[in-house]
Amino acid sequence: MTLTFTIHAREGQARTGTLSTKHGDIRTPAFMPVGTAATVKAMHPEAVAETGADILLGNTYHLMLRPTAERIARLGGLHKFMNWDKPILTDSGGFQVMSLSQLRKMDEHAVTFQSHIDGSKHVLSPERSMEIQHLLGSTITMALDECTPFPATEDVARTSMELSMRWAQRSTDAFQKREGYGLFGIVQGSVYEKLRHRSIEALTSIGFDGYAIGGLAVGEGQKMMFEVLDYTTPAMPADKPRYLMGVGKPDDILGAVERGVDMFDCVIPTRSGRNARAYTSMGEINLRNARHADDPRPLDEATNSPINRYSRAYLHHLFKADEMLGPMLLTQHNLHYYQELMVGIRAAIEKNQLSSHAQALREGWKRGDLAAL
Amino acid sequence: MTLTFTIHAREGQARTGTLSTKHGDIRTPAFMPVGTAATVKAMHPEAVAETGADILLGNTYHLMLRPTAERIARLGGLHKFMNWDKPILTDSGGFQVMSLSQLRKMDEHAVTFQSHIDGSKHVLSPERSMEIQHLLGSTITMALDECTPFPATEDVARTSMELSMRWAQRSTDAFQKREGYGLFGIVQGSVYEKLRHRSIEALTSIGFDGYAIGGLAVGEGQKMMFEVLDYTTPAMPADKPRYLMGVGKPDDILGAVERGVDMFDCVIPTRSGRNARAYTSMGEINLRNARHADDPRPLDEATNSPINRYSRAYLHHLFKADEMLGPMLLTQHNLHYYQELMVGIRAAIEKNQLSSHAQALREGWKRGDLAAL
Repeated sequence: MTLTFTIHAREGQARTGTLSTKHGDIRTPAFMPVGTAATVKAMHPEAVAETGADILLGNTYHLMLRPTAERIARLGGLHKFMNWDKPILTDSGGFQVMSLSQLRKMDEHAVTFQSHIDGSKHVLSPERSMEIQHLLGSTITMALDECTPFPATEDVARTSMELSMRWAQRSTDAFQKREGYGLFGIVQGSVYEKLRHRSIEALTSIGFDGYAIGGLAVGEGQKMMFEVLDYTTPAMPADKPRYLMGVGKPDDILGAVERGVDMFDCVIPTRSGRNARAYTSMGEINLRNARHADDPRPLDEATNSPINRYSRAYLHHLFKADEMLGPMLLTQHNLHYYQELMVGIRAAIEKNQLSSHAQALREGWKRGDLAAL
Repeated sequence: MTLTFTIHAREGQARTGTLSTKHGDIRTPAFMPVGTAATVKAMHPEAVAETGADILLGNTYHLMLRPTAERIARLGGLHKFMNWDKPILTDSGGFQVMSLSQLRKMDEHAVTFQSHIDGSKHVLSPERSMEIQHLLGSTITMALDECTPFPATEDVARTSMELSMRWAQRSTDAFQKREGYGLFGIVQGSVYEKLRHRSIEALTSIGFDGYAIGGLAVGEGQKMMFEVLDYTTPAMPADKPRYLMGVGKPDDILGAVERGVDMFDCVIPTRSGRNARAYTSMGEINLRNARHADDPRPLDEATNSPINRYSRAYLHHLFKADEMLGPMLLTQHNLHYYQELMVGIRAAIEKNQLSSHAQALREGWKRGDLAAL
């Protein structure tokens, strides 16, 4: 065991905890901003920390291609490279190989692919993924898996999951253990309860510092995702962090916390921020909408948003004028809103009030934006 | 007189001073970052202030078209709109009408033009320019002039200058005086000494809070620009600030300070920063150059750059990966370098050491970048 996970409070399936690492503590349930290419897009790293993020995610696929893991290692590792001294989780590269690269060929040994940047050929095996994440200096390393596409027949899902389980063993064998650094396995099995349970059995028999749920948020919809969580998280080890990969919108996160998930990552707050979409206590707000052009009110007075000193009219103007400050401010807002959401969720669980807190959050999102002036 | 200008020290033609305004003091010689569309591109306003800038420039042309001066006035003025409480100088709109708009028609009364954004038709007269700058709440308003193109025959330059002088009178007549707010006239006359002197006589007989030098940095080159300054600044009122519009690179600014100029504005530090070009104590450095890809050294250890905590390798990576943080960091660096340049120049003049300080600066720029590793 190289990471320590302490659970503080429980309400239903939900729980709060602290995951302690070499680079500091992660308060759970936690949301991890995505720093794809060694930067959380449009954000200074200090500003990411100021939103309240304890950990961020880096993408093995992007970093192995540019600037390469070897270069980052020569420069002292990913933390130093990007000026972020808190924990970093890196994905295994498997998901982006499937979604971004060209001319993939997959066999028992590895996946071979061409870079989407320059067409160069690369091989990613469990052993190479562990090596890359070690070179990056990742606090939490993810086992290499195959993200089973959706939809998949039960046969396809079984074959894919079983490959991922063999790769999980190879990942463990290749992972260089260090105190304060951890390795997570990834549960696959698509939407098939039996396969999910067999995947969990396979992973727990290997033993990991945490368990991720992969193969969701790939088009199955919130209802089906929650159904999978309903039978998946209760079967996962209770004393280890559970990480739902690639999720999601605030409402997805809330529902997954209620179903026992501890960690999340998603590009939605950053990507949406660059596209003028804000997440607020009143739901989604599109700042490009002309209704904001003359609106002197701040975006969301019910929250402690760091951009509340700006008017909606100004934010609208920045996006209309295609000014970089628009994406900068709205990314900052969204990341702050997500962290404020997690702070509120954690506090509610500690007080055994998650149920009423969740109801109030959902009512606010459903009520929608302020009436136009 | 609505602005107070106090001169503290002199060395040759150069001087240091303080221009006191409603929104605070401006230490001169001063460099004003350009905030075209109510934002200094890629910069939070707080970060602009942290670079040491006492004042920034807004563009009347851009703001009158989008979001419009009337809208900004309804929202409380430009300072409030963009969250900048220090002085703002707005140009008159004349320069950008000539360089950006379409289908211009100019007569004694005004210039009529079509917006480069949506083709809408607008009329800009001295009276309208004063009204717009008043609506914006500009600390320092510029008289409307015609920026004489370069090259221009003496006849063309005379006709253009004389129109600008009549417009300077109309600007003064239309300007609404308020304590702590000021109006600057603009000296024209192209590269003709007699015309420059006649322009200065015309403006001083009207009387302004400061005097700008227009029609330079339009392709005439540094040598000719300095020749014009050599006979222009000595003829300008000694007790009023002198503002060289649209200048320039660090070396242009230094030479102009030596020739008696007190204020500058230029898009170079911001535009160059977005394009991976840094201004440093070692001259210009292009971070896209492959020589930086593995370089762990900070950009410029001889200066107090706020981005010295990043390696050149990281900056190079950000530009190669087209990440917004690259423009954000290099804009911040360049604006900081410009302000550090002005701090050093002011301190040198106070100590009567501008000559040796200027020599050291020029030697550093000429020496060039560090040897590659």
